[in-house]
Amino acid sequence: MKTFLDCIPCFLRQSLDAVRMATDDEAAHERLLREVLRATAEMDVRQSPPAMGQYIHRLIRNMTGRSDPYRQAKDRLNRVALDIYPALEERVAGSANPLETAVRLAVAGNVMDLGVISHLAEERILDAVADALEAPLDGDAAALAEAVAGATNILFLADNAGEIVLDRLLIEQLPPRAVTVAVKGSPVINDATMEDAEAAGLTALVEVIDNGSDAPGTILDDCDEAFRRRFAEADLVIAKGQGNYETLSDADQDIFFILKAKCPVIARDLGCPVGSAVLRRSGHAEASADRSDSYATI
Amino acid sequence: MKTFLDCIPCFLRQSLDAVRMATDDEAAHERLLREVLRATAEMDVRQSPPAMGQYIHRLIRNMTGRSDPYRQAKDRLNRVALDIYPALEERVAGSANPLETAVRLAVAGNVMDLGVISHLAEERILDAVADALEAPLDGDAAALAEAVAGATNILFLADNAGEIVLDRLLIEQLPPRAVTVAVKGSPVINDATMEDAEAAGLTALVEVIDNGSDAPGTILDDCDEAFRRRFAEADLVIAKGQGNYETLSDADQDIFFILKAKCPVIARDLGCPVGSAVLRRSGHAEASADRSDSYATI
Repeated sequence: MKTFLDCIPCFLRQSLDAVRMATDDEAAHERLLREVLRATAEMDVRQSPPAMGQYIHRLIRNMTGRSDPYRQAKDRLNRVALDIYPALEERVAGSANPLETAVRLAVAGNVMDLGVISHLAEERILDAVADALEAPLDGDAAALAEAVAGATNILFLADNAGEIVLDRLLIEQLPPRAVTVAVKGSPVINDATMEDAEAAGLTALVEVIDNGSDAPGTILDDCDEAFRRRFAEADLVIAKGQGNYETLSDADQDIFFILKAKCPVIARDLGCPVGSAVLRRSGHAEASADRSDSYATI
Repeated sequence: MKTFLDCIPCFLRQSLDAVRMATDDEAAHERLLREVLRATAEMDVRQSPPAMGQYIHRLIRNMTGRSDPYRQAKDRLNRVALDIYPALEERVAGSANPLETAVRLAVAGNVMDLGVISHLAEERILDAVADALEAPLDGDAAALAEAVAGATNILFLADNAGEIVLDRLLIEQLPPRAVTVAVKGSPVINDATMEDAEAAGLTALVEVIDNGSDAPGTILDDCDEAFRRRFAEADLVIAKGQGNYETLSDADQDIFFILKAKCPVIARDLGCPVGSAVLRRSGHAEASADRSDSYATI
């Protein structure tokens, strides 16, 4: 997905939120905002929004000298999610359609996105869980079940800390030997890194790799070669969250996107109301047979 | 009031709204947004927000070749307000405290601000009127009544088209020979100009002047000398709307501000919740005796 003009005021608002979270120094807030204004004035809008997100959060880390300003927030989100995990695991196990229930809870986990709102109350997470179990799912869980049954090499692209704990409910519904989970190569916003995959208990369950990138999404050109090979070789990709949708919606691969459509631009691109729980297959299901041949072109 | 960093994302969103209202040309939308990004990157935040508003709307008028893109919208707002005017006039006349009721209705009129939202449904105006009559007024109408009783030279600074029609309810409560109404010198957003004062029937009622400026507020340095003299000579100023508050909150003059606090930055500056109906006297009441002496310093 390209960057829409409507994304730009939102970049500025998010920049201000993020730099205020990283430091109390008001001069730094102003300096950061002016840098982002200069950069957005010249930006290539054919890039996806996470390219600007990557730039902004690198600037904030450089400016504040903090390599991981969201670390405490990530730990808190993981704890909140781990607290509710056992009850949700029972809920999935007792459900008539465990895969669909797990997808719904993975959507609920997607509220834990500190790029969209910088402070997130615990009750908001609990509300999202309750909502996700009741609200309609915009998507076909049976198609996902069928794709999973036919896949031998599933790449699960995680999104955020906290969220990755609820993702585990879905990952547990997949054949463990067929699944690889990918996290970010280094910190950006509250995106999950290897530390969060460990906190979620995923490293003991399935293979976990990192993508070598600090973009808040999956910009393939920015990922390392090992990740790109794994992406190309996967016969099914499950991608969580807005950032992965924004960066991979046009990728030539069979992808199921699972997200809460939190912003009007993405909701319009997906053709759904803001707030929808979305499970959406990419338009490239046919191209998924053996991806390793086309690796060189990625 | 200075420009807060939080105003900047809002400038961008308002710019996009405004240029889309003025033209369907998407290349122009992008060009305008990039110009505004460059300008805000370098802006002096000690200026009040309407200084940037003036710059943005000049750019839009130059870029589109439309000298008054909001003219149709202004006519519509005037018509909507004139339709409800007779019933509101009766309401004021039958009220236990006509001045306070008129102040409340003048606050309601302040929703007709197309700088804050570019499209405004008629029912939203009717809702605002109903709300204003019920909701608490954050301010002391008795202090205004007292100031009016003691004043011989009242300058009423109008804000927007449509709104100026409801302002007439309040202007009718003032001694007609003591009142001068000021409108903008030329079009900016949907701010009222002489044409709107005529549509509201004010020119037949009191003296109406224009301020010689196209800023969406009252930037004294940008107003013509005749207006500045009238401002300095007034022994009471009544200023409508956010733009006038933003530009005159630090002015050395006895001013009653009447507005709906529509944005979080202004609400914080006023110390009230967003959405409040505000009647607020400036801190400079003592300095109001004879202003003509200090004219040269303005």
